Amino acid sequence: MAQDIKILEDRLQYHFNNQNYLLNALTHSSFANESKNRSESNERLEFLGDSVLGVVVADYLFRNFPEVPEGELTKKRAALVCEQACCGFSKQLGVGDYLYLSHGEQNSGGRARSSILADAFEAIIAAIYLDGGMEEARKFILRFVLPLLKGHTQKSFKDYKTALQEIIQQNPEEHIHYVLIGETGPDHDKHFTVEVRLNSNVIGRGGGRSKKEAEQQAAREALSLMGY
Amino acid sequence: MAQDIKILEDRLQYHFNNQNYLLNALTHSSFANESKNRSESNERLEFLGDSVLGVVVADYLFRNFPEVPEGELTKKRAALVCEQACCGFSKQLGVGDYLYLSHGEQNSGGRARSSILADAFEAIIAAIYLDGGMEEARKFILRFVLPLLKGHTQKSFKDYKTALQEIIQQNPEEHIHYVLIGETGPDHDKHFTVEVRLNSNVIGRGGGRSKKEAEQQAAREALSLMGY
Repeated sequence: MAQDIKILEDRLQYHFNNQNYLLNALTHSSFANESKNRSESNERLEFLGDSVLGVVVADYLFRNFPEVPEGELTKKRAALVCEQACCGFSKQLGVGDYLYLSHGEQNSGGRARSSILADAFEAIIAAIYLDGGMEEARKFILRFVLPLLKGHTQKSFKDYKTALQEIIQQNPEEHIHYVLIGETGPDHDKHFTVEVRLNSNVIGRGGGRSKKEAEQQAAREALSLMGY
Repeated sequence: MAQDIKILEDRLQYHFNNQNYLLNALTHSSFANESKNRSESNERLEFLGDSVLGVVVADYLFRNFPEVPEGELTKKRAALVCEQACCGFSKQLGVGDYLYLSHGEQNSGGRARSSILADAFEAIIAAIYLDGGMEEARKFILRFVLPLLKGHTQKSFKDYKTALQEIIQQNPEEHIHYVLIGETGPDHDKHFTVEVRLNSNVIGRGGGRSKKEAEQQAAREALSLMGY
């Protein structure tokens, strides 16, 4: 059925006080429904783990990207907690080998099915959370999420203002500032236009639904025009 | 502008170490965009607070309804954290009077707008979480969620098996058990049918995607036939 669970615990870098949590997290509904002793499926754990994953990632993004507006944080979190991401984390851990599946599910490739692996990852999060508390769950989650976040950040999740500032401040005589040059629309649907200036020269312009977003877009344009 | 913030803190039953968190939570984007001193809107706090609310409610439901299947927990959580619920919580606290809004937003009824009040409630959750930690946030959230949950539970969120058991065990000679009488469909799309029997008499029948769900439905039918 499943391989020695202690090897999986080593890979998780977490050893359970109560191993039943882990066994429960590895039990797919197909197995639970088939089993004579009425073992419970991991669906309830997945429900809980999904929330724990959500708050740990939200907390991390909120604290570590103080300049990034809410819309970007939301997109980023979605990318870090989606099925594809969680399935990938499960594969890194080799969770598929340890799942309890029905024979039918097993024969039809269940051990490699993306939804099953993703759900099991979230259920494992809940198992660690229930067994060891929020800080253990956080440690476990960030071990997988941070490398993925780093990859994303380099590709697409720039805090453009900070990046621009870091480039400019290499020369202490240069000075950047942002100027609001336009504001249109009613209160609930404003559009702002901002210029970023290097000393007195306009080096980028951007628009958005908040000043912050417009500034980010202006910095983005400046970086792009500067060849970054 | 806004009334004395200490009165609001009394209503929150939480007094901030750093009141700026609360002021930030009360600042609508319309005000932030208009203000000269570039105050930050509560949108980022709302992003964080939404997750904190989600995990606190998930944790509570998971621990307190051990017999309720995942699908029901998900529906219940959605009802407890939706805009309507959060707007209601804000109204209980009178948050509308304390919001920082642009003049335009204020004149168009912003202090009573459901989305604004709901967002502010989530932002206040994040403010408490950042200022006092998860346990303070949990205390705050459950003070509002539990009465709502209780109302829902009485109306629609029965753990039918437990309810049935409680009624039957008033007579110690009576004995309930559940019998699986049918199982159809492929592994990934099973349907189960279960009968609930009182001694040897069938008193209800139910179906579902798991044995647990089918049992709940069988208990529900029994309760209904018994006039509950």
